[in-house]
Amino acid sequence: MHEVDMIVDEIKELATLNGPNRPRIGLEMQELGIVHDAAIAIQDGKILETNAQQAIHQKYKARQIIHAQGHLVTPGFVDPHTHPVFAATREQEFAMRVQGATYQDIAKAGGGIRNSARRFQKANKSDIQELTRKNLWRFLNLGTTTIEAKSGYGLSTEAEIKSLEILQELQNTIPLDIVPTFLGAHEIPDEYRQNRRQYIDLIISEMIPLVAQRKLAQYCDVFCETHVFTVEETREILEAGKKFGLLPKLHADELTPTGGAELAAEMHATSADHLVAISDKGIQDMQKSGTVAVLLPATTFFLGSSKYAPGRKMIDAGVPVALATDFNPGSSMTQSMPLVLTIACLYLKMMPSETLAATTINSACAIGMQEHVGSLVPGKQADLLIWDCNSVAYLPYHFGDNLVHTVIKKGKVIKSGHTL
Amino acid sequence: MHEVDMIVDEIKELATLNGPNRPRIGLEMQELGIVHDAAIAIQDGKILETNAQQAIHQKYKARQIIHAQGHLVTPGFVDPHTHPVFAATREQEFAMRVQGATYQDIAKAGGGIRNSARRFQKANKSDIQELTRKNLWRFLNLGTTTIEAKSGYGLSTEAEIKSLEILQELQNTIPLDIVPTFLGAHEIPDEYRQNRRQYIDLIISEMIPLVAQRKLAQYCDVFCETHVFTVEETREILEAGKKFGLLPKLHADELTPTGGAELAAEMHATSADHLVAISDKGIQDMQKSGTVAVLLPATTFFLGSSKYAPGRKMIDAGVPVALATDFNPGSSMTQSMPLVLTIACLYLKMMPSETLAATTINSACAIGMQEHVGSLVPGKQADLLIWDCNSVAYLPYHFGDNLVHTVIKKGKVIKSGHTL
Repeated sequence: MHEVDMIVDEIKELATLNGPNRPRIGLEMQELGIVHDAAIAIQDGKILETNAQQAIHQKYKARQIIHAQGHLVTPGFVDPHTHPVFAATREQEFAMRVQGATYQDIAKAGGGIRNSARRFQKANKSDIQELTRKNLWRFLNLGTTTIEAKSGYGLSTEAEIKSLEILQELQNTIPLDIVPTFLGAHEIPDEYRQNRRQYIDLIISEMIPLVAQRKLAQYCDVFCETHVFTVEETREILEAGKKFGLLPKLHADELTPTGGAELAAEMHATSADHLVAISDKGIQDMQKSGTVAVLLPATTFFLGSSKYAPGRKMIDAGVPVALATDFNPGSSMTQSMPLVLTIACLYLKMMPSETLAATTINSACAIGMQEHVGSLVPGKQADLLIWDCNSVAYLPYHFGDNLVHTVIKKGKVIKSGHTL
Repeated sequence: MHEVDMIVDEIKELATLNGPNRPRIGLEMQELGIVHDAAIAIQDGKILETNAQQAIHQKYKARQIIHAQGHLVTPGFVDPHTHPVFAATREQEFAMRVQGATYQDIAKAGGGIRNSARRFQKANKSDIQELTRKNLWRFLNLGTTTIEAKSGYGLSTEAEIKSLEILQELQNTIPLDIVPTFLGAHEIPDEYRQNRRQYIDLIISEMIPLVAQRKLAQYCDVFCETHVFTVEETREILEAGKKFGLLPKLHADELTPTGGAELAAEMHATSADHLVAISDKGIQDMQKSGTVAVLLPATTFFLGSSKYAPGRKMIDAGVPVALATDFNPGSSMTQSMPLVLTIACLYLKMMPSETLAATTINSACAIGMQEHVGSLVPGKQADLLIWDCNSVAYLPYHFGDNLVHTVIKKGKVIKSGHTL
């Protein structure tokens, strides 16, 4: 009998998502590596083995046993697109939208991202850090154990650096893996509205080198959209990032088909995100390049729109598809991956199984974390969820609640609820 | 100094919803009786006084003090339309809908309510009771302290009675107020498909008298809809219920405008529910009769439809509007009033303040509970929520999570979370 740190047993349905560390495409997205009546052996924060319960108990003796009590176990969610560092929430703009203003109206009137940037620059760092800390804990509470997190509400060198420093500092105190992305190109700030070229130069010649030198980010992202950054500007900024080792990602084709998806494919970006208005050419290009499409249906929902990204079409075309919350104070004030699964089933016409692949292994691939997280296979981190339900099929079905019972991160229990 | 059982203090924003015990209409729905820096004195499970914190502390001394820590306090939600008694969940039908089947397709093929009825009749009572118990606790956990609960998955005299008995028994063990409704007329069961008249006779001459005699329900409800019960059949069943003291309620104009709203007004029903397809005449009639419109936007969302009930139009026309989850295993598998607020803001164009009035005082009026719950005024039950946020405006804005920190029911703490 081999002694191990932990065994999780009494698992009715275990979704391992086993297989190669690359995105699942097409029908692969429905193969979840399910094991019934299973158990997991965990050692040094990593998966040692997943198997039938009997086999695990015959082989290992554990210092700690967690009983899943006949429930479902899945990998922790990997959320590959979030904006969690801001100084203030924007519920006033939500009320304006209810009364008829569009998100674009609010942005044009100086609200939206620029509103956040103004408040960010006025706020002190410890207050922003405290709000960000709360924002990050809510991810964990809802079953997300790894996130990508963007700067982008600073929009000045000092404030963008501050934003990334906050993430770096919180990484040391919160049991959530954070992959940082520099998003200085989130908007043109107030003081550069008449001289956008100057702001782009600032990003390229000051922000990117500094972020890279201080190792504050792994990715460089640009909001490529009408009224924000053009395809040409986006290419220029992403190329500059690449030179400094920041891998490219982009907000593409969210509201209008500007050619963002095509650019992402051309540049071999790790991901292109949003894609509500992606063209057929964009879909073909992304399929060829293997760029991960990160779809954000909670944003479409929260903007009150009925035009969702063509998730079904993209999967059927062989594009690797991932899902994210897009958590941010303007267009998607939610940390809930479970709700994203529901919206993706209902409005992107994705199967329940596909939504799980899209929020674990595929989303890990969208942020370069596929060697560490996104599936429960030997050697990967023991990041897993015990659910208060019995099957993957149930997850998107029972909506608007938090059915995550237990969260285990790197082999440690960090949340444990009571079964209702 | 007067000694009381409990004081809740440190309330930054207290929404009392004070005012008369009748539905708020029109602009009244935005008046929430807000008190800032407030406290509440509670005695014998009831509200003794709400006031500025200083005034309460000067006047009362409490055996127990609960600090709201600068957060929002509201009445507990009153959910006026739920179907929580069933034998099995229906996630398989959800997957069928994702693949293109409509809810009506599934119903026509013998799924839907009839699927639930078949499984209900086969299941044993204790299993149904255990699942129902879990369903009811989820309401409390999400801040709902009073529900209306319907039978309607039995569709035989024995099974309908069993359904209502389960509710009666659970009422004694769970701190949730349950207002029971008899809904034998939820569907035509399999064995009467060729002889619907016989089933209607069974409802009228056997089920209703027995339910009334055993005091198992306060309301009688009918699913008035194309392919289910006609307006004439609905009238006949509701009249029969009235004779036995069961007050009328109806599922009206959910999918097609059959004249259900007009019938509700004509019969002075307590409420008409769904109303997605209500006619202009129906709106006028309901305004005149004062029948409460119970809107169920989570159902529209979960059916993947983009046609929501005309909430804004009904409020502007002076119809008293309430909101409910419609919790049921087919068309709305959620107990979350917070998510209903969000959907109502985004898709019914209701203001955040209006959604709170619609889920407290107005929903209490929709189930005859306005003398006891729905507002925090002296003499009413001390059913209240301490939120993990600071304002009513924030409630629908931060979505997909459970921001309910503390639930107090009849003066007792029944849930207390930790602040993130």
